[in-house]
Amino acid sequence: MAPRPESKVAEQIAPEQRASAGRKLKIALVGFGTVGRSVAKLLSQNPHSPFVLTHIYNRNVARKKVDWIPAQVRWTDKIEDVLASDADIFVEVVGGLEPAGEWVSKALRAGKSVVTANKLLIAERGPELLRLARQTGRQLQIGASVAGGIPAILAIQEGLAGDRLYRIAGILNGTCNYILTKMEATGAGFDSALKEAQELGFAEADPTSDVEGYDARAKLVILTQAGLRVNVRSEQIPCAPISPVEAVDFGYARELNCTIRQISIAQKNTANGLRLLAAVRPTLVPLASLIAHVQRNQNLVIASGEFAGPIVLSGFGAGGDPTAVAIVSDLYVIARQSNAAPADTGELAEDPQSVSGDFVVPHYVRFIVRDRPGIVAEVAAVFARFGISIDALLQKPGYPHSALPFIMTLEACSSSLLDRALEEIGRLDFHVERPLCLPILTQ
Amino acid sequence: MAPRPESKVAEQIAPEQRASAGRKLKIALVGFGTVGRSVAKLLSQNPHSPFVLTHIYNRNVARKKVDWIPAQVRWTDKIEDVLASDADIFVEVVGGLEPAGEWVSKALRAGKSVVTANKLLIAERGPELLRLARQTGRQLQIGASVAGGIPAILAIQEGLAGDRLYRIAGILNGTCNYILTKMEATGAGFDSALKEAQELGFAEADPTSDVEGYDARAKLVILTQAGLRVNVRSEQIPCAPISPVEAVDFGYARELNCTIRQISIAQKNTANGLRLLAAVRPTLVPLASLIAHVQRNQNLVIASGEFAGPIVLSGFGAGGDPTAVAIVSDLYVIARQSNAAPADTGELAEDPQSVSGDFVVPHYVRFIVRDRPGIVAEVAAVFARFGISIDALLQKPGYPHSALPFIMTLEACSSSLLDRALEEIGRLDFHVERPLCLPILTQ
Repeated sequence: MAPRPESKVAEQIAPEQRASAGRKLKIALVGFGTVGRSVAKLLSQNPHSPFVLTHIYNRNVARKKVDWIPAQVRWTDKIEDVLASDADIFVEVVGGLEPAGEWVSKALRAGKSVVTANKLLIAERGPELLRLARQTGRQLQIGASVAGGIPAILAIQEGLAGDRLYRIAGILNGTCNYILTKMEATGAGFDSALKEAQELGFAEADPTSDVEGYDARAKLVILTQAGLRVNVRSEQIPCAPISPVEAVDFGYARELNCTIRQISIAQKNTANGLRLLAAVRPTLVPLASLIAHVQRNQNLVIASGEFAGPIVLSGFGAGGDPTAVAIVSDLYVIARQSNAAPADTGELAEDPQSVSGDFVVPHYVRFIVRDRPGIVAEVAAVFARFGISIDALLQKPGYPHSALPFIMTLEACSSSLLDRALEEIGRLDFHVERPLCLPILTQ
Repeated sequence: MAPRPESKVAEQIAPEQRASAGRKLKIALVGFGTVGRSVAKLLSQNPHSPFVLTHIYNRNVARKKVDWIPAQVRWTDKIEDVLASDADIFVEVVGGLEPAGEWVSKALRAGKSVVTANKLLIAERGPELLRLARQTGRQLQIGASVAGGIPAILAIQEGLAGDRLYRIAGILNGTCNYILTKMEATGAGFDSALKEAQELGFAEADPTSDVEGYDARAKLVILTQAGLRVNVRSEQIPCAPISPVEAVDFGYARELNCTIRQISIAQKNTANGLRLLAAVRPTLVPLASLIAHVQRNQNLVIASGEFAGPIVLSGFGAGGDPTAVAIVSDLYVIARQSNAAPADTGELAEDPQSVSGDFVVPHYVRFIVRDRPGIVAEVAAVFARFGISIDALLQKPGYPHSALPFIMTLEACSSSLLDRALEEIGRLDFHVERPLCLPILTQ
């Protein structure tokens, strides 16, 4: 990070001289799907850019060729051609763990810098690959791997470099946000909202990774390492699916001046060794907060620091063009910094003593019961035995006695204590459905 | 921007060697008010930082001394001592046009890089000072001059470098946002909301610069230059004060699913030469947008690009600690880039052919009249003559005939055309107050 004052003379060359004296950075684009095509489009549109596209790799490349790519670009389906080429920067947009991981390693070892949009790869092997980039004196830029067009990694690593971040929270999955905002706006159930999202292209045919929270979790891992400087693995972070959320929950949430969103959150605690709390769960969020108003399939990240307070970033978290903007912006970072100390992305991340999802927060619990006298008293008695205080009890009219929903909000307690209480309550005889328990986001 | 591949070997030095081989960057802190003290605190807290505070300048410095500053720091009230010192970076937090501007120039000419939080100075002389920094081979970082702890400049210049921005809009003045959110929440009038803001320290004794829009305008000038790459001077941008907004307007805005905020907006149009539209005005904003939910004295910036879509940034736009985070983050930018090509902040900004506030947007017009038959017909006749279409007419019950408020919303038309129509309408005999005309923000 220290300056090398002896070479400052180089900066005194006027910019236009520098631009003409230097050569353009050669870009190899590895993957020509939706994101790859958008990257090629952005690179082709600006003749004054410091980049020139030289290679495009794709499997069965012949069927991918398009006529708007400049003639000098080499199309190939042999990755070895790209790795052995004189390309300066390897742009990986094939996705998936392998062979992308092997290719990124080989590209770094071949002296290329790498830009990747691969959240799975960076969530799984980010620290290792960033170390490799250091060792080879090249750069690995990962801004496009989280939250698409939102410059979240850059903002938290550089824009908030002067702060000490202790919490990252957000809406990191556009599919879940689309489904939940649709349920909120129309009163639709989960299944029909999912079906609509699939028809409109906002959800995949197999929505497991989105609905269960795995997609958001991979992004949370990357943001935790980049922003909180804490190493964590995906499998250490508990997830809860959004599918048990029902229309009735939005009604009750509204009574509490809240709505429901899939929230990813990681918080570090250094009071007694380094500990990380992290989870991806459907969560009640106050209508007074920005996070309640993220529209459709957009994303939002809140970075909370000790000094600057919470900073919010929002925008389109996926899609060809937004992700391509993040990739091209990372190319500019490399162009600017190719002669400077590499950004220390993730290098300083520490291993925590523990990782758990055991936040101490208020909770919302929704019961659906076959009504009879004494239910509330029995539930309350169990909570009391566990030392959990009830904050509010709501039962809206208009439901049948055979399947009657009511909700309780509970004062802050640990999720694990509440789980044990709910296990005991779950053995009582009046349940029509398993109780749904959601944390309530507090600022 | 082009790389200098011949010197890439330097990057292969392991980071720990580089850190120990290099020396810390010497920081001169010029100004020891609220922001200056926060900067000193942040710099003193991290022994591993690449910075060392060496000088503190303030007028009558003796009364400013505090015991938590390391003993080796030199306190002075002679700016010449700082300019002639071996400090690497000159941190200007005195504010105001002069002598700050002279000092920043002298610091750059003396071979120092400069970090400034001075929005007045950068709005007035940013392009000139950035050119000077280029000429002297030093850096001028201005991230703290807009929106305090929100890394807006960095995000739009680097995080969205791959996009082409055409619009910047936002809430850039925390005082106005505090006053307007208070009016919205409590039904208070402007005067009492201002008084409360003053009592709580959210507004100054003389609130002119905030209420009239001048403070927000200076920030809009800087964001326009940095993000849209268009040169503009403060006096070219029309402002309207928030003081004519009344409680009744929030009631009508709510009927339209909107609220009212002071919005700063700049939009470039390249269809027919480079033209800039820009204004700072109280504006109706849809409740469905994030910008309607910015709390208290926070700020929000929306950067709209052709590819990534709108990106939103929000957080505390002022205050000692948030501004200090922005300053220290800019110090890190200098540390990282001291050996690379300087960021091209603002250099590429072009002069537009025209600047005006003449947006073509829907409008809200509120009348307060001495009621009599025929008023609506007379107003409608004037609008019809100017070719302006009425979208909606609302008149809530419960007001006296002697001062009856009603509102119209108008389909998109140019502000200048509407001004002419309203001038004619203003000559009619039934007005109790001058009609209030607010643009409606559309996405």
